[in-house]
Amino acid sequence: MPTVRLVDVAERAGVSIKTVSNVVHDHPYVRAELRARVQAAIDELGYRPNVTARRLATGRTGTISIAVPSIDVPYFGEICQALDRRLRAHELRSAIEQTLADRDAESAVLEQREQGLVDGVIFHPVALTPEDLADRQAGFPMVLIGEGPAPASIDHVMIDNVVAAQQATASLLSAGRRRIAFLGYNRPKPSETTGQRLRGYQQAIHAAGLKLDRKLYLRVDNYAPESGRLAVHEATERGIDFDGIVCRDDLLALGALHGLAELGRRVPDDVAVIGWDDLAIAAHLTPPLTSIAPDKEAIARRATQLLLERMNGYHGPGRHEIVGHRLIVRGSSGADRP
Amino acid sequence: MPTVRLVDVAERAGVSIKTVSNVVHDHPYVRAELRARVQAAIDELGYRPNVTARRLATGRTGTISIAVPSIDVPYFGEICQALDRRLRAHELRSAIEQTLADRDAESAVLEQREQGLVDGVIFHPVALTPEDLADRQAGFPMVLIGEGPAPASIDHVMIDNVVAAQQATASLLSAGRRRIAFLGYNRPKPSETTGQRLRGYQQAIHAAGLKLDRKLYLRVDNYAPESGRLAVHEATERGIDFDGIVCRDDLLALGALHGLAELGRRVPDDVAVIGWDDLAIAAHLTPPLTSIAPDKEAIARRATQLLLERMNGYHGPGRHEIVGHRLIVRGSSGADRP
Repeated sequence: MPTVRLVDVAERAGVSIKTVSNVVHDHPYVRAELRARVQAAIDELGYRPNVTARRLATGRTGTISIAVPSIDVPYFGEICQALDRRLRAHELRSAIEQTLADRDAESAVLEQREQGLVDGVIFHPVALTPEDLADRQAGFPMVLIGEGPAPASIDHVMIDNVVAAQQATASLLSAGRRRIAFLGYNRPKPSETTGQRLRGYQQAIHAAGLKLDRKLYLRVDNYAPESGRLAVHEATERGIDFDGIVCRDDLLALGALHGLAELGRRVPDDVAVIGWDDLAIAAHLTPPLTSIAPDKEAIARRATQLLLERMNGYHGPGRHEIVGHRLIVRGSSGADRP
Repeated sequence: MPTVRLVDVAERAGVSIKTVSNVVHDHPYVRAELRARVQAAIDELGYRPNVTARRLATGRTGTISIAVPSIDVPYFGEICQALDRRLRAHELRSAIEQTLADRDAESAVLEQREQGLVDGVIFHPVALTPEDLADRQAGFPMVLIGEGPAPASIDHVMIDNVVAAQQATASLLSAGRRRIAFLGYNRPKPSETTGQRLRGYQQAIHAAGLKLDRKLYLRVDNYAPESGRLAVHEATERGIDFDGIVCRDDLLALGALHGLAELGRRVPDDVAVIGWDDLAIAAHLTPPLTSIAPDKEAIARRATQLLLERMNGYHGPGRHEIVGHRLIVRGSSGADRP
């Protein structure tokens, strides 16, 4: 595949390379006749300015990396969609990548700027610690999303997970549920995200004057729906009694609905179920799933704004922003206990 | 953010730029003492070789673009995941982007190579015609996936949509269903994907000696679950009788299950439902969804292999490959009509 070079255009047009370069870069002092001749040669040969070379000169690529743990997890697909639309509005391209929550892959995200591949990163880290992030950032325009603790120097946008989990749990308590399980406690110890949601759950139980029962922490090995299904079966086999479940996310809730249906337990009559993420599928499950809806548009809007400010020279301390969320009540928690 | 340059390292180490360059590029003839001194300066200053510059020299970026219509559609998330894992095994990075099925965005995908941004593309086009693709490819290492017609010059991996839709429809016919609807006929005319699946459905109806009834083509404006739900309500309001539905994809099937539940129609007893894509959620729906499962791993494996061959110099005609699929029978079509 022969790439057409500047020199080829110059030869065809019978002008110097300098003249071609002036035309390509819209230099004002090029005679109209020369400009037309060069343009004709450009069109004829299908020449395209080498953006790699231009990037060396301007230092900008026009591309923003969006790095998330797993692209096949619907929440990340939905947040990437929202971010991509925002970036497009600013004529920026997105390059989405998944890190699989791997330390090396997450480190590689931070190296992209040094390598001149992207102008900035919107990053949902899982494996790197705040110290890792602070050490390696070095002025790289970057905005963090997600629940990981962020260093003071880096911009970060998230929702208040503790408050949201409190509200979800309190809504079941106020509907009369008394044995509410938390589904998604992961082994060997809760992830940062799970930890925050568990904390909100615990606070709501305490606030209602009830005692925490650790048997009601339903454990999972991962966040696939199958894990939610198995956890519900396991708890039932062990004779653990529950009349509500606050799930760590909608995929686990999907599995819980499946497991409860197999066990012949009616939702919400016997067990009320609440998920998290308000995935596009949540409203169409059987029954439709009550879910915590993070304001994905607000996350995308603020993350993009903060990143643009960094790219345009803001060098101040990290901004740590909390955006909104709502509890969307649907059939899975909508009816009181009979 | 001051970028550390080769010249800074040379200054710190008290050597020439040429010597630093030799160390960075692992040139063999550098004295051990000099090499150690340069390495110390590199470590101290945190210098990283400029990959943009290196790319200008080697012409390779190590990055493959994966371009799909919408990243928030779970099928695309799942296929990107499979492709990314394959590319990683070959030490290639993925940059995933969505085109939103827009002609300009799809054209931009083809321009990336000319711009030196990526080494190749795995591309699921929707808006571009085979002529567009053939005209603009120009030796660009590219493999197409998806159901669009591909030009003879370009590699393409897909499943046989017509055969798969035939099998799905035939499975309902052989279970005694006689009024089988096709859900997902989009206005004003079917997309390429929908068209192929509709054709397989039609062939199965014909093969069973039944007459096609166009009233059983349930129309949608898009492929969101809500459209599937509305289509089922609309058909029922219009008094259209059906005992089975072959859906154009799992998201429409999800909406259909929701709509049927609202209408009090039992699945599969009253209406059997089959989806397409075998999404990770399909096995956990209520009832679990029968679905056509494209062999996503085989799509990813073959697409990656064909792309690597192109990148390594294969210049022959396009290879057009069909990979496997299976009909995964679950509860939504599992029982015979009462």
